[in-house]
Amino acid sequence: MGILVLGTVALDTVKTPFGKKDFMLGGSAVHFSIASTLFTEVSLVAVVGEDFPAKHIEFLLDKGIDLTSLIHCPGKSFKWQGEYSGDLNCALTLNTELGVLSSFNPSVAAKQRDIQYIFLANVDPDVQARLLSHMRRPRLIGLDSMNFWIKHKRPSLVRLLKKVDIFVANDQEARDLSGEINLVKAAKKLSRMGPRMVLIKKGEHGVLFYSKAFTITLPAYPTEKVIDPTGAGDTFAGAFMGYLAKSGKLDIATIKKSLAYGTVAASFNIEDFGTAKTSCLTLADLNKRLKELKKIVTF
Amino acid sequence: MGILVLGTVALDTVKTPFGKKDFMLGGSAVHFSIASTLFTEVSLVAVVGEDFPAKHIEFLLDKGIDLTSLIHCPGKSFKWQGEYSGDLNCALTLNTELGVLSSFNPSVAAKQRDIQYIFLANVDPDVQARLLSHMRRPRLIGLDSMNFWIKHKRPSLVRLLKKVDIFVANDQEARDLSGEINLVKAAKKLSRMGPRMVLIKKGEHGVLFYSKAFTITLPAYPTEKVIDPTGAGDTFAGAFMGYLAKSGKLDIATIKKSLAYGTVAASFNIEDFGTAKTSCLTLADLNKRLKELKKIVTF
Repeated sequence: MGILVLGTVALDTVKTPFGKKDFMLGGSAVHFSIASTLFTEVSLVAVVGEDFPAKHIEFLLDKGIDLTSLIHCPGKSFKWQGEYSGDLNCALTLNTELGVLSSFNPSVAAKQRDIQYIFLANVDPDVQARLLSHMRRPRLIGLDSMNFWIKHKRPSLVRLLKKVDIFVANDQEARDLSGEINLVKAAKKLSRMGPRMVLIKKGEHGVLFYSKAFTITLPAYPTEKVIDPTGAGDTFAGAFMGYLAKSGKLDIATIKKSLAYGTVAASFNIEDFGTAKTSCLTLADLNKRLKELKKIVTF
Repeated sequence: MGILVLGTVALDTVKTPFGKKDFMLGGSAVHFSIASTLFTEVSLVAVVGEDFPAKHIEFLLDKGIDLTSLIHCPGKSFKWQGEYSGDLNCALTLNTELGVLSSFNPSVAAKQRDIQYIFLANVDPDVQARLLSHMRRPRLIGLDSMNFWIKHKRPSLVRLLKKVDIFVANDQEARDLSGEINLVKAAKKLSRMGPRMVLIKKGEHGVLFYSKAFTITLPAYPTEKVIDPTGAGDTFAGAFMGYLAKSGKLDIATIKKSLAYGTVAASFNIEDFGTAKTSCLTLADLNKRLKELKKIVTF
């Protein structure tokens, strides 16, 4: 089927109790694409600056990701610097340099405008809406956001919610946007705001999926190896949407399996810095851990 | 097989966003027994004061719970007053009147000393150890505690840990006692302190079970009906241990099913104040929801 993802391509500097890495390949669209490409063809829509290392571009091309709509702009690439401490569940942003992202106007190559599976990873909701206006035959649209936009661009985000099929949020974002503390209530309320499906990611506590037809909840894959959780949510979304695009279905069995793939993909992501682990991941690796997860939760 | 539980029998006053109830039947041994008695014969070891309402005693007897070792002492019954706000995940203790609990010396009727399944619900670890010294043929010993004892009676608790098979804790207690933030690491470390099995209850996020042979994780039953979570952990433990006692086995399939029973029993407990919901619960109710949970997590 193929999937198109809009998001960020970034250079991440991350400090955790296990060390510090500078200017790693990162960004929502990157983490999403790496996971998604295990299931389907991925077209990436993003922007990078003049300083963006050629090796990262080569890596993404090697992965088979279509970079036709990755714009190279004069200026600096988007850079994020963050730190995790304690339970590594929450990132403290130390610095953000938007660079070329601040004036990003996404353009989609003509041949990509008919792609039916679309994921709007975390960028400005107005940019997400602009991307969507280019697409001719959307069949399934996923949307992610973050607290910054919930706070500063709420009307744009609420407008966009009406146009998408799946809203993906972490627990705090779901609570902030819905005003509900109980996550089942939050999911229901978010669904009433537009999307027929809501996916709430709870980090180490797994995931809650809501649609009118069914509610699904899965625990995270239990692991003690948590090195760097950056991009885990995007990796989850990438595997989840990738499997949906590959299968072309939305029944309960398919949704469950896509959530399970998201869960195990994210569990690999956190095991090393940046994309170190996911960059060499195969579908066989995912399937092996999927089997383990199945054994863990089936009673 | 039968199970013996040591714990508190209390009069609980609870305030939540949904109302306030005064002097309800409560306490760790009560919540545990009500759930456990759906699976096996339960003998309760606890103390109450002169003011303890006869109707509560009648209710427990009606449930078939053996109260031979429930001591009636001169003085006031143990009373707890708490309040929940926000996400109802954390109780704020407003007042505790220990009453007869402060000098509680458990005694076990001769005929009960051969019971092989034992659960030491949350009381002073020295009292828990004293109870254990009465038991002649323990086969499976479960232990619960709380932050107060972790802080104020750590050496006693650590000594007791070496004598039990299953340690049951909530996530915060597991972290406090182990010094580990990652819950898989915490469970492993707690297991190295004595118990061959560790069960970490994560409230709305489900449960993590660890033994050397296997790790299991289950999400909570997704519900938006959370009225009063008091006793949910003890209800979980009651159904969990009750099913283990009934089955007499400890293989992975049995442990999984016992965790699932604990999960659904707890999900009923939180749906109303005190024991309002669990007091009229049947095994058929549990089995029905068990089937739903199975459908939710199986992929």
